[in-house]
Amino acid sequence: MTEFYYNSWLEQYKRPFGAIKAGKSVEISIDCPNMKIAALYFVIRKEDGDQGVEQYLMESDQNGRYHCSYLLSQGKGLYYYHFMIQTRNDENQLETFFYGATKEHGGIGQVYREDMQLIPYQLTCFSTAEKAPTWYREAVFYQIFPDRFHNGNPHGQISQPKKNSFIYGNHSDEPMYVKNEAGEIARWDFQGGNLLGIIQKIPYLKELGVNAIYLNPIFESVSNHRYDTADYLMIDGMLGDEVIFKQLVDTLHEHDMYLILDGVFNHVGKNSRYFNYDGSYGTKTGAYRNSESLYYSWFTFIDYPKSYESWWGIADLPQVNKENREFQEFIYGKTNSVLAKWNSFGIDGWRLDVADELPDFFIQGIRQNLEQYTEKILLGEVWEDASNKIAYNQRRQYILGDALHGVMNYPLRTIILSLLREETTTEISAKNLTILEENYPSDIFMNNLNNLGTHDTERLLTMMNENIIKMLSAFSLMIVLPGIPCLYYGDEAGLTGGKDPENRKYFPWGSEELVIQTQIKKWIDIRKKSAALKYGNVYPFYTKDLFGILRTTAKEYALYILNPTNYLKQINVSEFIFTKQCPLSEERVGNMLEELKIAPYDHVFISGEMETFD
Amino acid sequence: MTEFYYNSWLEQYKRPFGAIKAGKSVEISIDCPNMKIAALYFVIRKEDGDQGVEQYLMESDQNGRYHCSYLLSQGKGLYYYHFMIQTRNDENQLETFFYGATKEHGGIGQVYREDMQLIPYQLTCFSTAEKAPTWYREAVFYQIFPDRFHNGNPHGQISQPKKNSFIYGNHSDEPMYVKNEAGEIARWDFQGGNLLGIIQKIPYLKELGVNAIYLNPIFESVSNHRYDTADYLMIDGMLGDEVIFKQLVDTLHEHDMYLILDGVFNHVGKNSRYFNYDGSYGTKTGAYRNSESLYYSWFTFIDYPKSYESWWGIADLPQVNKENREFQEFIYGKTNSVLAKWNSFGIDGWRLDVADELPDFFIQGIRQNLEQYTEKILLGEVWEDASNKIAYNQRRQYILGDALHGVMNYPLRTIILSLLREETTTEISAKNLTILEENYPSDIFMNNLNNLGTHDTERLLTMMNENIIKMLSAFSLMIVLPGIPCLYYGDEAGLTGGKDPENRKYFPWGSEELVIQTQIKKWIDIRKKSAALKYGNVYPFYTKDLFGILRTTAKEYALYILNPTNYLKQINVSEFIFTKQCPLSEERVGNMLEELKIAPYDHVFISGEMETFD
Repeated sequence: MTEFYYNSWLEQYKRPFGAIKAGKSVEISIDCPNMKIAALYFVIRKEDGDQGVEQYLMESDQNGRYHCSYLLSQGKGLYYYHFMIQTRNDENQLETFFYGATKEHGGIGQVYREDMQLIPYQLTCFSTAEKAPTWYREAVFYQIFPDRFHNGNPHGQISQPKKNSFIYGNHSDEPMYVKNEAGEIARWDFQGGNLLGIIQKIPYLKELGVNAIYLNPIFESVSNHRYDTADYLMIDGMLGDEVIFKQLVDTLHEHDMYLILDGVFNHVGKNSRYFNYDGSYGTKTGAYRNSESLYYSWFTFIDYPKSYESWWGIADLPQVNKENREFQEFIYGKTNSVLAKWNSFGIDGWRLDVADELPDFFIQGIRQNLEQYTEKILLGEVWEDASNKIAYNQRRQYILGDALHGVMNYPLRTIILSLLREETTTEISAKNLTILEENYPSDIFMNNLNNLGTHDTERLLTMMNENIIKMLSAFSLMIVLPGIPCLYYGDEAGLTGGKDPENRKYFPWGSEELVIQTQIKKWIDIRKKSAALKYGNVYPFYTKDLFGILRTTAKEYALYILNPTNYLKQINVSEFIFTKQCPLSEERVGNMLEELKIAPYDHVFISGEMETFD
Repeated sequence: MTEFYYNSWLEQYKRPFGAIKAGKSVEISIDCPNMKIAALYFVIRKEDGDQGVEQYLMESDQNGRYHCSYLLSQGKGLYYYHFMIQTRNDENQLETFFYGATKEHGGIGQVYREDMQLIPYQLTCFSTAEKAPTWYREAVFYQIFPDRFHNGNPHGQISQPKKNSFIYGNHSDEPMYVKNEAGEIARWDFQGGNLLGIIQKIPYLKELGVNAIYLNPIFESVSNHRYDTADYLMIDGMLGDEVIFKQLVDTLHEHDMYLILDGVFNHVGKNSRYFNYDGSYGTKTGAYRNSESLYYSWFTFIDYPKSYESWWGIADLPQVNKENREFQEFIYGKTNSVLAKWNSFGIDGWRLDVADELPDFFIQGIRQNLEQYTEKILLGEVWEDASNKIAYNQRRQYILGDALHGVMNYPLRTIILSLLREETTTEISAKNLTILEENYPSDIFMNNLNNLGTHDTERLLTMMNENIIKMLSAFSLMIVLPGIPCLYYGDEAGLTGGKDPENRKYFPWGSEELVIQTQIKKWIDIRKKSAALKYGNVYPFYTKDLFGILRTTAKEYALYILNPTNYLKQINVSEFIFTKQCPLSEERVGNMLEELKIAPYDHVFISGEMETFD
């Protein structure tokens, strides 16, 4: 069966590479030089399309190469395709085979005898190329969990501590949840970081080289993470007020820095102004306490008021019905809305919490609001490959145009960490990266917010078993990959910790791990100065032991090779296997790398102008 | 059987009243006017004495009154006595009866047919009359749990917070224990009160009228209560330092105020300098980590180092072996000891934690140390009647001379609270009070530190069901009774709460309950100005519904009557029943009280010079 060859990653078989804009055509070729073909069909079906399965007879040339061109005329969405091959056997009988993708999807496929088992290739079709603003495309982000970054009050006082809450005795104390005997949170624990603290640390951030901040929620809430919004229109009193927030935005802008906020619109806090379970907002207000409340229709009560729909069944977080027109208007109405209010402070965009729980129309509504302005970015939290995620039985359209500019790139994190944790091979890592690139519209792939650790994951250094070499290799690999690098506060200072709450330690001001900080600063600088890293095409490659990335623009190249093993490894260019067609000859690459060896878990990085290859 | 009458509370039957000094005699009489007595014996036995049971034939006068005099020649301790009566019946046969105490002990007794059931009377014999210094006898105390009183730092900062500890977000937050899943304390919770805070509130205390402070532990410790001493020679860094402590002592003295410290010598903290379980004091020091440690011999290891003796089996509190000479020398050696160090700061005495766990010789050793100085007081924590407490199979000699000046008077608290909670009758309350007075040497009874709430009990206001009238009646009753009144910080401000940790709220500065504060201030003033209340004899009395106290000196009287019922009650002097012989005639008392009515749970108080009765 090796007589068939198709590889969705090579332009001689599929052009253009990757996702395709609606209304454009894709050129498909397949080689089967040694077969007696009776007929070869390109079979394609748009998911939820109205044309059903389409079947096109492919044309062959004299070398046994079959070809067809397909016009994506059914608009954005996912198209699935495979090949149906009819041959005649020695008895001149017709036999039917199929050629589709492997279970990993993408790249080289395989022959199927039965169409029941067949895995089709995914072809992503988008409606709009999401050209993000330049500031964003060139940014290096820094994620701040505001309670744990810096307290900017003159004597370290805590601004407006919440009723029955705890403040850590020391900034170096280990985070912990204070629970009651039933295992529920009994009190919230705070370090008292605030917006003034961020303003004071702008010079630090500037020196580090980051130039955009993704800020975890800052609106009035009960918890320290503030994903349980109590009032969308108020800055949490522990963090500051509108004057200080304005000062933060303005000071950042004065320093050519940017700010995006965390929008938590899927649910609210139980003790919010809207639900008001505990009566914090009055005895007769809020949906829980008054069925005449303006907010009553936001929620779905099963047995009023005791039983209601909540996020993942967590009663603390009543879910809002996004179909509700008043709620939509409240969140993203053109004026007098939550978005309108905070946009007017000049922020540069939003990250949508649990974007996969928000209906597409809701995300699109938010995007439309932002389109009033220039240069505001919209990102979403999606943990999986966002091109083909199904949430609530719906294939989601976050990244196919007019919705998100990009998503938090957790799948990329998995690729990088698995490689350095020696959980996957270099080959699988290179292929998984190429699959991701193939599935995402190219602008989205360039726009994704890449992160190696967030408030929701283990700390990078901990994932790297506290091996600093590994950690810096992970970070530098993120730096050289497409997408916007985002550093989780304190990773550069050597913070460690497993999942929540350990990953939310206070920034260790005064006892930073300087080796890490210096290297991270160096890599951020490399990124910002390199057009190849910001805009270049990406070419993953691998050997049995090494993993590499080549980035190229017309003028520049950058070459990064990682040794994810515990042994010293010699580079041998002749062993390089590219997942896509490398734009440079082996000789050219080899000239750069001769005699290089890479220490365990370390990497090499070379960059320069394209002329140097000539 | 009513032909016998004896009452240990009346001087015509036993003189002098109460406890008797060793080497003195007691005069005992019993009436049996209508019996044919063959012989009547006074039978007495000193507990652990070497003379065994002594039996004296009593002499009768013509009225059937039998008498004997008994010299207490066997030194201090408890003597038990009863009467053995032989009569001749109609057949001229000898019959033997016994007369002893009822199960309540003291006062009128009862006849027993069998000596097996007989309950003897207790006669307490002491070696030394513990005349406390005048400052103490005239003091009104205020107990301060230092973490919860006042933070005196300029911006409310917390001084030297402990590693992995929590600070309450607000002073008004409810205290709670932060526990792990195993139910153990996971972190200690602090409000950050400190010694500077106490210094700043001296004007407040002076205005309130208290003039002595009993301070809960202040030495370096891990917990917020500091009963887990980590270093006896250091002021806990959260509370202050030696300079501030000296300033506290000196400032108090400048204001004619006094200070006693809490001495916790039965056990130490697991993570102390001495035991050093967690290595806070070095990897190779302390008994747990080094069997060559100077402190190794202080502890009793069962299986070194894992298993060791600890207080009530609480592994956090390793018990010290008080037989250990080095420990004795360390605590109460004349020089270079814990006592020597802190006494040199000029403090006015000590309260010994869990005094019933300290051997008598250890308490006596402490007392000897204090005898170097003039006017230092030594109190002990004992929860029961300290005259007859048995601890570890040993009858204890805390209050029989050369040991404690007095004890924390928890039995008195029980009498007062039970009465106002309507759990006992006025009669039982009056009798229990008289029993307590009878059993304690009179100086001790005057020296006891009376309290209605401490860090170890529910708050007074809570015990009084938050009824302010009841609370003020309880407080005023304590004020008029013998012993030194001690107010638990914040009771005057209206703090409520059940047992630990609820009873350890932060003082509600700025939102004090002024009605309570005003009344408590008034009562403290009354106490300080009244010789009758400070020095007078005490005469409890009762009617079916009322409970009263008459205090008299040669020159002054004070009369207090409480209505512990929910009904308005008319005073009727002719119904008064005194447990002891009232020194005034019914007419004299009646002249004062005519027409008075007492509201539910309220009281009346009258005082004046003795001449006004004439």
